[in-house]
Amino acid sequence: MLDDPLYYTIPIAGIIGLLFAGYLTWWILKKDTGTPEMKAISDAIREGAMAYLARQYKTIAIISVILGVLITVGINLWTGVAFLLGAFFSALSGYIGMYVSVSSNIRTASAARRSLNESLLTSFRGGAVSGIAVVALSLLGVAGIFFVYQAYVAVGAPDSAELYMDALFLAVGYAFGASFAALFAQLGGGIYTKAADVGADLVGKVEAGIPEDDPRNPAVIADLVGDNVGDCAGRGADLFESTAAENIGAMILGIAIFAATGNPGWFMFPLVVRGFGLLAGLVGIMSVRMRNEDENPMKAINRGYYVTCVIAAIMFYFAVNELLAGEMLFFVCGMIGIALSIVIVYITQYYTAGEYRPVKKIAKASETGPATNIITGISIGMETTAMSVLAIAISLIASYELGTMAAPSGYEFIYGLYGTAVATMGMLATCAFVLAEDTFGPITDNAGGIVEMSGQPEEIRVRTDRLDSIGNTTKALTKGYAMGAAALAAYLLFGAFFEQVAKIRGIDIMAFYDTFTVDLLQPVVFVSAFIGAMLVYLFTSLAISAVGKAAGDMIAEVRRQFKERPGILAGTEKPDYATCVDISTKGALKAMILPGILPVVVPVALGLILRYAYPDVNDMAVMGVGAFLMVATIAGVLMALFLNNGGGAWDNAKKYIESKGLKGTPQHAAGVVGDTVGDPFKDTAGPSLHVLVKLLSTITLVFAVLFVV
Amino acid sequence: MLDDPLYYTIPIAGIIGLLFAGYLTWWILKKDTGTPEMKAISDAIREGAMAYLARQYKTIAIISVILGVLITVGINLWTGVAFLLGAFFSALSGYIGMYVSVSSNIRTASAARRSLNESLLTSFRGGAVSGIAVVALSLLGVAGIFFVYQAYVAVGAPDSAELYMDALFLAVGYAFGASFAALFAQLGGGIYTKAADVGADLVGKVEAGIPEDDPRNPAVIADLVGDNVGDCAGRGADLFESTAAENIGAMILGIAIFAATGNPGWFMFPLVVRGFGLLAGLVGIMSVRMRNEDENPMKAINRGYYVTCVIAAIMFYFAVNELLAGEMLFFVCGMIGIALSIVIVYITQYYTAGEYRPVKKIAKASETGPATNIITGISIGMETTAMSVLAIAISLIASYELGTMAAPSGYEFIYGLYGTAVATMGMLATCAFVLAEDTFGPITDNAGGIVEMSGQPEEIRVRTDRLDSIGNTTKALTKGYAMGAAALAAYLLFGAFFEQVAKIRGIDIMAFYDTFTVDLLQPVVFVSAFIGAMLVYLFTSLAISAVGKAAGDMIAEVRRQFKERPGILAGTEKPDYATCVDISTKGALKAMILPGILPVVVPVALGLILRYAYPDVNDMAVMGVGAFLMVATIAGVLMALFLNNGGGAWDNAKKYIESKGLKGTPQHAAGVVGDTVGDPFKDTAGPSLHVLVKLLSTITLVFAVLFVV
Repeated sequence: MLDDPLYYTIPIAGIIGLLFAGYLTWWILKKDTGTPEMKAISDAIREGAMAYLARQYKTIAIISVILGVLITVGINLWTGVAFLLGAFFSALSGYIGMYVSVSSNIRTASAARRSLNESLLTSFRGGAVSGIAVVALSLLGVAGIFFVYQAYVAVGAPDSAELYMDALFLAVGYAFGASFAALFAQLGGGIYTKAADVGADLVGKVEAGIPEDDPRNPAVIADLVGDNVGDCAGRGADLFESTAAENIGAMILGIAIFAATGNPGWFMFPLVVRGFGLLAGLVGIMSVRMRNEDENPMKAINRGYYVTCVIAAIMFYFAVNELLAGEMLFFVCGMIGIALSIVIVYITQYYTAGEYRPVKKIAKASETGPATNIITGISIGMETTAMSVLAIAISLIASYELGTMAAPSGYEFIYGLYGTAVATMGMLATCAFVLAEDTFGPITDNAGGIVEMSGQPEEIRVRTDRLDSIGNTTKALTKGYAMGAAALAAYLLFGAFFEQVAKIRGIDIMAFYDTFTVDLLQPVVFVSAFIGAMLVYLFTSLAISAVGKAAGDMIAEVRRQFKERPGILAGTEKPDYATCVDISTKGALKAMILPGILPVVVPVALGLILRYAYPDVNDMAVMGVGAFLMVATIAGVLMALFLNNGGGAWDNAKKYIESKGLKGTPQHAAGVVGDTVGDPFKDTAGPSLHVLVKLLSTITLVFAVLFVV
Repeated sequence: MLDDPLYYTIPIAGIIGLLFAGYLTWWILKKDTGTPEMKAISDAIREGAMAYLARQYKTIAIISVILGVLITVGINLWTGVAFLLGAFFSALSGYIGMYVSVSSNIRTASAARRSLNESLLTSFRGGAVSGIAVVALSLLGVAGIFFVYQAYVAVGAPDSAELYMDALFLAVGYAFGASFAALFAQLGGGIYTKAADVGADLVGKVEAGIPEDDPRNPAVIADLVGDNVGDCAGRGADLFESTAAENIGAMILGIAIFAATGNPGWFMFPLVVRGFGLLAGLVGIMSVRMRNEDENPMKAINRGYYVTCVIAAIMFYFAVNELLAGEMLFFVCGMIGIALSIVIVYITQYYTAGEYRPVKKIAKASETGPATNIITGISIGMETTAMSVLAIAISLIASYELGTMAAPSGYEFIYGLYGTAVATMGMLATCAFVLAEDTFGPITDNAGGIVEMSGQPEEIRVRTDRLDSIGNTTKALTKGYAMGAAALAAYLLFGAFFEQVAKIRGIDIMAFYDTFTVDLLQPVVFVSAFIGAMLVYLFTSLAISAVGKAAGDMIAEVRRQFKERPGILAGTEKPDYATCVDISTKGALKAMILPGILPVVVPVALGLILRYAYPDVNDMAVMGVGAFLMVATIAGVLMALFLNNGGGAWDNAKKYIESKGLKGTPQHAAGVVGDTVGDPFKDTAGPSLHVLVKLLSTITLVFAVLFVV
């Protein structure tokens, strides 16, 4: 039945993607690794990063195997296996991202000795390897499970909505595994990187008055390692699970329409456009190149992004035409998704870049000290939610309404949800490119550190500083993009959850939606929603306090070294980098457990309590868990926007103050305090919340069988 | 029909309350006003406070009259008049609180020269005048409107649920007016007080190194004025509207049960127990007295609180027996409310008092500077939501379930809601006493300032410092109490809204609840909820940034005075207090407008947009506005808990550091930064959110006629 030639593009795009990632890796590795000093620093970073990742993965593996066994016992073996596979591939994506990153950083630094353009190409393509590999692996993984189940597990079963749903339910286990591992990777990496960063900055920059990335700072290697384990490995795992979960959710919605129309295009569409998007991303990535040495590198990156958008849009049109019965209203939904991704980028840029009012306002408030800097930054962070939520709200409603307009009578609701899914697919079509921009950030950050620590001449530092500052911007933009996509995808994941509920009950999904509601008027449902929103606060609290604690240990250690061995600051003695690396490692591994377990335990416990407390009210558990999920999503998106944008604005306010030549003034010191407070906001709690929102969706999907009667 | 003798207790309790407040005022005013120096300072505070209040009330009056006219045109004349009456009485409550406060502060200071007990009695009874007056006025206002409407407006109309609902709908206009004025009073007062406080602290304590309340600080009078206009006038207006709105909401629920049972006791019950609670509060207030000079004054206050609780519980039993057909399950609901008020107090105390882990953790984090202080404080603030939400959730569900168990078949839902209303009444039974504790705070704060500025001997300062520190604790506790009550009352206000909808449609409320849902599954409803939660962030942002801005102006002014007139710091020249008072005044009046208007405009606009965008889907506007209201309530409660408790913890962490003799160290400086950041959290945004949540309820009730079809 699945015989449209267009479906072949799915594996082909995945394989082309992997081959291309291999080619880029080869292209990067054959570049030179600079001076011996540079190499020594790069080796130290690589060693620290690999050592941390090995320990982190061991911890994640132990927890995952325990949960995998519980799933096997509680649900079934196949789901348990899919869960472990998902966890493995998510970790693998993180590993690939980090491996290429620690190889690209030194080559970027070395290339900066020759030209800005070459340095840009090296770092951007380094980031692209991670982006392409994540998207390709996620695509191949989801498609693979789907086809393998049909061909080998359910041998001989006739093509049917039932069969496809079973296959997708396995894929959901896979997505849950991926989310689960990603949450720990993002939390652990985020805690690691910010404990090191905060520690290095507060003692080094503020107290000892030495510059960023100064080799005399004992925490400097830990800081550079952190960029890799947090931003590369963590984010890679995060986006792997996002793309997997959203693809699966959209396919589940598509199956409901397939059941009604008999056209498998509805559920294959998400995979096909993801494949197309990957191909568009490859072209876009290769078109990033500066026209001349004086061009702003950001312009070159933006050019590549627009190339990606245009190609993706054309392919989207083609896919709608072929698979969705030529219903062009869905093409418009896809364009809404692409437009939202651009709008969100502009909003994020307005709130976090140095040239606009918000960052300048924080810089100005720093004149009166750290307290007014913090007050203003928090206020700006909260303000950013308004425009973002309006943009998301309009996109969500518009794509839903367009979907209902395309529906045959009686199918408005499900077509509407599908419209939001198509918009999400549109937004995620550019995902490979965006991920490249994201990983580009830590590579340039590391390159700057290597150039600084190896004592390269001023003009080379200027080049890497320029790339580093652009990397900060792209990192902020991609966080905005990821959060916007998560909000837009919320509905398709809710829809998938309720479809799963209908399937467990053996009810036709249309009949289910006709009668089922998530009625907030029921106090039990309201209270469940309340607890969902509270979970976001508690999780954020745990993530932030972990950084505060580990950073405190780091500060004490750096102070100790400076005090006990005065030769370090004088430059005559080498600091003890390894102890600092160890403090970050231990702090991160210990502190990630509780916030990582919490979002797994709470929704399952809630579902079970409601099931047994209200056995006669059939829907209470489903409504309660549904409201929990939905309001936690609302609370999570808002909190993440606040944390990410507030943190980004603080960071750039500090840079803005520096750019005015005010380094060393009290105003700058106030700016550093704000930047430091923003660190765990934007690099630990914010990105982890992004994973949390997705994880809550996949977890309720997987465990629905336990509390749905 | 309303002929139960128990109903006479309503006006009697109100009048006894007012007489008693008059007696306490007389008792305070006949006390001596200390030395001429003290008098001079007290007069400056009184002048500044009265001048600000006059200007603020003028602004509120203009806005209120405009809105009153709009209501008259859009709804009807009676509602417009009730609205203006509510605004007037709310402002009057604030005025009374402030008047007594600025008279009690100097008498408290003077009494401290004689004994701690006398000083405690003077300040606590000063606070009690405000607490008693607010509760008595609110009770008489609501009851008055209700009876006047029946006796004079609907002359000759037969007793019926319809008639009572009409009367209560007028009362809702009154509550809306009260909320509206209270929001501006709390916002304006909150901005004023914190702009002055932050400005005074940052330049005075941190930069110039002079102690708190030093007469050389030009912002010191503005700071002391701020305590009165923010904490007394603002909070008085706030609690006036809270008690009014919750009483009315509970009565509306009671009318639905009256319609079914014919027993008017169901809707008169809230007024009667409020009257009883007031009487219990009077006894409790008078029993506050130290057993000897060495007793901890907090113990004396707690004793009075428990006396109030016990008497209120006994009277509650009596009222349930007489009015609610002796259904003792509702008595249990009331006890749940009283228990929740005690539990919330303990949770708040744990998180904000110096002797427990959280505050010590912040103090410890201050060792490594302001950044780790802020990170830890934010983490603690977010953590506080967990226990509080669990306590609220359990109380809400327990009282709802008890209510359903008391219901005749088919009436479970409405009886359940009524159960939550009775729990709220239980919690609010101790309201007069709690408000006394609250206003006690700024009086002792001012007394300390007067003692310090007039150069009294050390031993007297020790006494006022002790009272001041207890005042800080009681202020934090009452904020926790107010927020807990708001969360518990959420359901009765939602219920009142939907009852109003049923009334507009002319549907029986039971039939309405049987079919109506607030279905979060509808994307439009979900997006409305999303916007509700976002509004909380935007409002908080505006409130905080207003403080940041006004404080920045204040800092610049204080620095200017110190620089241009070196005689000020040397103590040879008097600073220019008036300019600082003026900066706070202007900053507050300008900045309160936008955040004050926003929560009025957004829900009404949302309702109208949904009504016209979905004319064929009858319930969309009601569901959308309902979800907006409910999720905004969730978001508002969480944010307020975070802001209030985080701010309180920072404040006491600074005090804890001081108590260890570390004043003047970098650790203390870090503590001051945290305290300063916490100021707009706990005294501007947090309390204003409390009003916001109530305002959203009353506004949707009043304007429902515009978008319900």
